Amino acid sequence: MTYRPELTQARCAPTFTVEARNEHGEIVPTEIAAERPLTLYVDKREIVTLMTLGGNPEALALGYLRNQRLVENLEDIVAVHADWEVGAVAVTTRHGLADLDGRMAKRTVTTGCGQGTVFGALMEDIENIRLRDDVRLDEAVYYQLIDNIRRHETVYKQAGAVHGCALAKGAEILLFVEDVGRHNAVDAIAGRMWLDAIDGSDKVFYTTGRLTSEMVIKCAQMRIPLLVSRSGLTQMGHDIATRTGITMIGRATGKHYLLFSGHHRFVKT
Amino acid sequence: MTYRPELTQARCAPTFTVEARNEHGEIVPTEIAAERPLTLYVDKREIVTLMTLGGNPEALALGYLRNQRLVENLEDIVAVHADWEVGAVAVTTRHGLADLDGRMAKRTVTTGCGQGTVFGALMEDIENIRLRDDVRLDEAVYYQLIDNIRRHETVYKQAGAVHGCALAKGAEILLFVEDVGRHNAVDAIAGRMWLDAIDGSDKVFYTTGRLTSEMVIKCAQMRIPLLVSRSGLTQMGHDIATRTGITMIGRATGKHYLLFSGHHRFVKT
Repeated sequence: MTYRPELTQARCAPTFTVEARNEHGEIVPTEIAAERPLTLYVDKREIVTLMTLGGNPEALALGYLRNQRLVENLEDIVAVHADWEVGAVAVTTRHGLADLDGRMAKRTVTTGCGQGTVFGALMEDIENIRLRDDVRLDEAVYYQLIDNIRRHETVYKQAGAVHGCALAKGAEILLFVEDVGRHNAVDAIAGRMWLDAIDGSDKVFYTTGRLTSEMVIKCAQMRIPLLVSRSGLTQMGHDIATRTGITMIGRATGKHYLLFSGHHRFVKT
Repeated sequence: MTYRPELTQARCAPTFTVEARNEHGEIVPTEIAAERPLTLYVDKREIVTLMTLGGNPEALALGYLRNQRLVENLEDIVAVHADWEVGAVAVTTRHGLADLDGRMAKRTVTTGCGQGTVFGALMEDIENIRLRDDVRLDEAVYYQLIDNIRRHETVYKQAGAVHGCALAKGAEILLFVEDVGRHNAVDAIAGRMWLDAIDGSDKVFYTTGRLTSEMVIKCAQMRIPLLVSRSGLTQMGHDIATRTGITMIGRATGKHYLLFSGHHRFVKT
């Protein structure tokens, strides 16, 4: 049986309604996305404050710790308690985090429209990542996936101002998470994959957001060989995709797409 | 005469061309946005690594220090030397930064699709900010500004995957900066405003990005009373705009807009 830490299920309303005045001078009730500070504590030590929609605080906390390489195994985590009254998520570990002081001191704060924090030398790890080369994505299956995502109910359709991420097996959406930031959405997916023991090595990762360096690094870390974005990419995202051999598709809208790297996994039909 | 620190003028090409394969199986040369790590040092101490397009490293460094409240006055800065060979920008101060150790230790790392780092209690400062109430924006002038921005030459039109920000006086664009992240673009604007001694109190700030909490906080800090976005907003962005009385317009596309707060400064014609 898959190990699960003790978990809360703290959920919040993802949208609010406010009044706005439009160009005709009319008052229009307008749905807007929530944005809540969630401070992450590990064994009572403050790690980071994440600005989030609030739908997946436990998975977000776990995915953050996983993607920042602060925790190696889910079994090291005893409990994850989120509490929106105080805007905090408290993670209890079995043995404490090894060398947390050292890692916190060394952390490089990176920005961009990025998550912010990258602990240690993620870029060095990239060189050692091997993605599965026997996985294929047929063009017809790809189009079916894009259509499934289009029909998915989303906060974005109601309120905008959020990014969505999906983990898919072929055209089937396994997980779908939206959040204020691209990186919180991908971290929440990583947390859910951990909790549900989902292996990324034969999956497709879809994002509405841009493919910047951190986004591609996180996919590679999760061993996901196929990455699809509705948006564009940056030169460093492209560089990392090329070096890891990830199959990267950008500008995925309707019938259009651009395949940038890892051509061997994409089968045109 | 306006004080100016000693400045480099380190510029990089904002776009690269890579090959992609489209849905017709054709190889298409595709322009993509640059993304370069720029590590900021103050008096030889490492502060942050910013992922940037590379067009304004000096202004970006200055605006970052200004918006993070690490430096109060431009006169405290002797020199700003950016060097793309090593991906670094070195800032030399006149007297060192007061209590930098304390501020670095206390800093809360926030994320979201946000900049990342917020030093100290920016939110508390918000309560004390007073924006000018005698500034007006006529609807006709607003539409002219939107049209001027539409016609501005941009990296976005070539390569996508970047955010743009503009500082305007009425319909006239005074500054226009694009960067990989929304927050770097606004920081670079803040840096340029410092260098050119531009007062924000009667200006309009335009952004292609979403109006999240940090975006609204930064505008309020620069005393800019009018904020316009092509995108949507979050609940915390809305809350801060309401509390500071900033005039906030979202979904500004073509003839459409939604006025969310500070109605008194916007004059419908």
